[in-house]
Amino acid sequence: MASGRILRVDMTNLKVVVEDSPPEYEWLGGRGLMARVLNREVPPTGHPLGKYNKLIFAPGLLAGSHFPSSGRLSVGFKSPMTGGIKECNSGGPAGQKLGRLGIKAIILEGQPADNTLYVIKVTKGGAAILPADGLAGLNNYAVAKELRAIHGENVSVLTIGTPGERKASMATIACTDMDGMPSRALARGGPGAVMGSKGVKAIVIDDTEAKPVAAKRAEAFRELVKEYATFLDENKGAGLIRAYGQMGGLVWISDRNHSLPVRNFTSGTFEGASKIGGKEAIGYLTSRGSEWGIACMSGCLQRCSNIVRDKEGNYLTAALEYETAALLGANLGIDDIYAIAAMSRLDDDYGLDDIEMGVTLGVAVAAGLMNFGDSNKAIALINEIGQDTNLGRILGEGAAVTARAFGISRVPVIKGQAMPAHDPRVEHGTGVTYCTSPVNDHTAGPVLMRQPTTAQAVQASKQAQIDMAIVDSLGLCMVAFTDRAYPMKKVTEVINAQYGQDFNLDDVQQMGKAVLKEERAFNLNAGLAPGADRLPEFLKEEPLPPSNLVFDVPDSEIDAFWDF
Amino acid sequence: MASGRILRVDMTNLKVVVEDSPPEYEWLGGRGLMARVLNREVPPTGHPLGKYNKLIFAPGLLAGSHFPSSGRLSVGFKSPMTGGIKECNSGGPAGQKLGRLGIKAIILEGQPADNTLYVIKVTKGGAAILPADGLAGLNNYAVAKELRAIHGENVSVLTIGTPGERKASMATIACTDMDGMPSRALARGGPGAVMGSKGVKAIVIDDTEAKPVAAKRAEAFRELVKEYATFLDENKGAGLIRAYGQMGGLVWISDRNHSLPVRNFTSGTFEGASKIGGKEAIGYLTSRGSEWGIACMSGCLQRCSNIVRDKEGNYLTAALEYETAALLGANLGIDDIYAIAAMSRLDDDYGLDDIEMGVTLGVAVAAGLMNFGDSNKAIALINEIGQDTNLGRILGEGAAVTARAFGISRVPVIKGQAMPAHDPRVEHGTGVTYCTSPVNDHTAGPVLMRQPTTAQAVQASKQAQIDMAIVDSLGLCMVAFTDRAYPMKKVTEVINAQYGQDFNLDDVQQMGKAVLKEERAFNLNAGLAPGADRLPEFLKEEPLPPSNLVFDVPDSEIDAFWDF
Repeated sequence: MASGRILRVDMTNLKVVVEDSPPEYEWLGGRGLMARVLNREVPPTGHPLGKYNKLIFAPGLLAGSHFPSSGRLSVGFKSPMTGGIKECNSGGPAGQKLGRLGIKAIILEGQPADNTLYVIKVTKGGAAILPADGLAGLNNYAVAKELRAIHGENVSVLTIGTPGERKASMATIACTDMDGMPSRALARGGPGAVMGSKGVKAIVIDDTEAKPVAAKRAEAFRELVKEYATFLDENKGAGLIRAYGQMGGLVWISDRNHSLPVRNFTSGTFEGASKIGGKEAIGYLTSRGSEWGIACMSGCLQRCSNIVRDKEGNYLTAALEYETAALLGANLGIDDIYAIAAMSRLDDDYGLDDIEMGVTLGVAVAAGLMNFGDSNKAIALINEIGQDTNLGRILGEGAAVTARAFGISRVPVIKGQAMPAHDPRVEHGTGVTYCTSPVNDHTAGPVLMRQPTTAQAVQASKQAQIDMAIVDSLGLCMVAFTDRAYPMKKVTEVINAQYGQDFNLDDVQQMGKAVLKEERAFNLNAGLAPGADRLPEFLKEEPLPPSNLVFDVPDSEIDAFWDF
Repeated sequence: MASGRILRVDMTNLKVVVEDSPPEYEWLGGRGLMARVLNREVPPTGHPLGKYNKLIFAPGLLAGSHFPSSGRLSVGFKSPMTGGIKECNSGGPAGQKLGRLGIKAIILEGQPADNTLYVIKVTKGGAAILPADGLAGLNNYAVAKELRAIHGENVSVLTIGTPGERKASMATIACTDMDGMPSRALARGGPGAVMGSKGVKAIVIDDTEAKPVAAKRAEAFRELVKEYATFLDENKGAGLIRAYGQMGGLVWISDRNHSLPVRNFTSGTFEGASKIGGKEAIGYLTSRGSEWGIACMSGCLQRCSNIVRDKEGNYLTAALEYETAALLGANLGIDDIYAIAAMSRLDDDYGLDDIEMGVTLGVAVAAGLMNFGDSNKAIALINEIGQDTNLGRILGEGAAVTARAFGISRVPVIKGQAMPAHDPRVEHGTGVTYCTSPVNDHTAGPVLMRQPTTAQAVQASKQAQIDMAIVDSLGLCMVAFTDRAYPMKKVTEVINAQYGQDFNLDDVQQMGKAVLKEERAFNLNAGLAPGADRLPEFLKEEPLPPSNLVFDVPDSEIDAFWDF
């Protein structure tokens, strides 16, 4: 049975309550669990930074098992950026650790009366609320270092930087990687702001003495792991991801798919693409001391991540991924990969979302605050946020607010949140996901290939969103599953082997559909009508070079997405 | 027949087209007409500052007639602040002039490719688009003076200040008063930003040679005017308004009704009330050279307005009203009426909404930017907006964005727009209006008196909103109609006499209901679900001293408002 404990951390009264997960949460994990808890426990029209919002950390149903790449961690909350439900999802070892500790969810509730900051320490015995002595005002690299020095090198740390303390909407929750660096993030829609509003500077997860969760049908499980390993060895896409990681695909997206965000979404292809992604750029970086093929959690067979070192060989950043290179690079006309890495390092340290940042700085160009290609100015603007200037207060709220402050009407946002690095004028299916996904993200249903008809784009988005709702509920890594090339039927067998069940593919698809409907219910109750499911008008009328396509999925087809 | 011309001003191609109003607009005017045009012509999910939004100026159905106080001017648009439909409504002579010119609406459409600013001149012959030579960068008092020097002292001028040029969400459209001063405003939800986005710095209305619109049943009409005059002479409320204007009621609202916004909505009563409103304050001002009993349009029998002079007797501002004194005064803990008048003058000159400003500065106190009672700092913060600093860019977006920029979750806004000066914890009916009014304002349905039950509060709001939709569609002044004490049956007779019709009271009530439903349709299509019709949570749980009431109308009763 998929049972476990729920740790409720009451930040109003500074008390922790450990509950057994109720039976109705049995087959809910990760994204599915956060959606159910949010709908049950959080008033949908409350203020995102108020005491009634909750921050729900939930590993997936397979977390702590021996299945590879099953330790992604979800966090759910009402977003200060969109006003709707938001789920973010990160790699790193934290999810696995929670799975091993038998924790289905950590729920941060309430908020302290004063501005005191706390650290939550989670162990086998439960959780404790500790003072955050000396951590206030520090950013993520310093906080992670400090907390690992105190609590041991093997703990996972989830932490917010100073923008999170100030509740900037762009603030992330950084997650330490296998080396203890806060290079990964629960990034989008303001989870760091919500954590700041709870008075929580960091969560330390110590799984000392915890053990992996054994499969009920051990033999079948072992066989499935073996099959999966073979699949990865033989699948061409999986091979490319293993060799080059996510940044590897950037040149294809630029030069073949023509859906890269370039210079504030004015082109789909970038002349500097090979300098910031693909084989060539990765070869250049690795020849100068950077490492590719890094795993973000133990047991990963894909190892798509990286460690980037500067030209002198010093650690600069880790987990430099496609979205970062695309939005902090191409979207700003910047083709200097070291500058992009430095920007991403700054974002990781302050705890700021690379995607929102790249789009916001694109808007900043339109506002006359910087020019395309000027990485020094881009870095200066990131520092405005980190250093809490008035300009930084604007930028830190993201692209939509920056556009408002500067009177700009061409804004690449959807429901107030920046558009990811897949231009929907080519990727119509991804565009449908942007419109309809209640959690408002590309990872909730990416459809990279152009579809022959708009109806097929809607259908492709629907299937991708259902599958991803399952993947995100199990804690699986979409990248390790090669953008869903690994069959969902096999995933069903993994669940059955782990839990000794007999679900069929349709049962699991129904779980995915139920997650989407649960999420959408929150948004409708929060005041977001179907009319909010629309892309900005410029995408419908500015043809994107070189394909010269526009986003032409009719509103009626978008609304009909929900007929399932 | 209530026909007339529609002037379409195409700011993309810089062309004016004059159309006869189509038959289906026959019985639509003012607010009702703007709602219909917006629903027919403006894509509800378009960007408020984009080329598809329209700015619809429409006088009421009685504009230009001989009925007193029937010349209010409506403007409608999709609001950059709320994302929904917005109507603002102002006194001054402009509406009468348009009525006399036989103009049912001026519709500003499209936008220029560059940032050039224009002046629209409206005359008996139609409209012309003129260059705004030398006006860019000037604020409203200078612009109005300049344009009256060029076009004659008798023209009405609608103008935006520099924040409007920059498309600040708080930007108003100033309207000149009987003395040619830009003391009145189409104020709320960002009409000045939308006018700025159209490249229109000002509209000059010259009604030379135009004549009042004669009533079809002249005798009955004269009789009704006489009856109305008698009603005003005999009605106690009308007498108070004539004597003291709108500021007159402030002490009652503070000391008896306990629904004044005080120190960022933390109290309903203000110890300095008699210094900033009521008999005493008005006596003080008039004894030092200010004038009360000023009419904002010719023929007004109530003359609720004023001209405020400084202690040396120099003109300071005009039309200093209740909302201004309440929100720039009590809500900021400021009891210096001259300081409040100076702030309001600054707002009028820059073209900024007093209501949004007062609430924003209340939030600024919570953000640590100023202290209650510090009028010098308040003036400095208004100047930040006028002078376009980065802090001004934040404040200029209003209370909701300011709260976001400073991480504040207790925010007196509804649908992203500042709450007016009637605390809904006492005025439950007004609170229902705040929640449900699609145009999002207190004037759309004020219910000052506390109602015995929440159901009665909903009912009172409903009737008030229906009546106000009628009043705003006719161009009548709610104040001159003594907050609707003048019977709607009589209003029906006025329409019949003017137009030679035989509507009954129910016909006219249906017109009001239709306006509300028309407006609500736009919001639903724009993406605002019923969940958006909610007050901020602090109003439901922070008891308001001294009544210690909260806003306790259940969500279900609020949603049931629309069952009609």
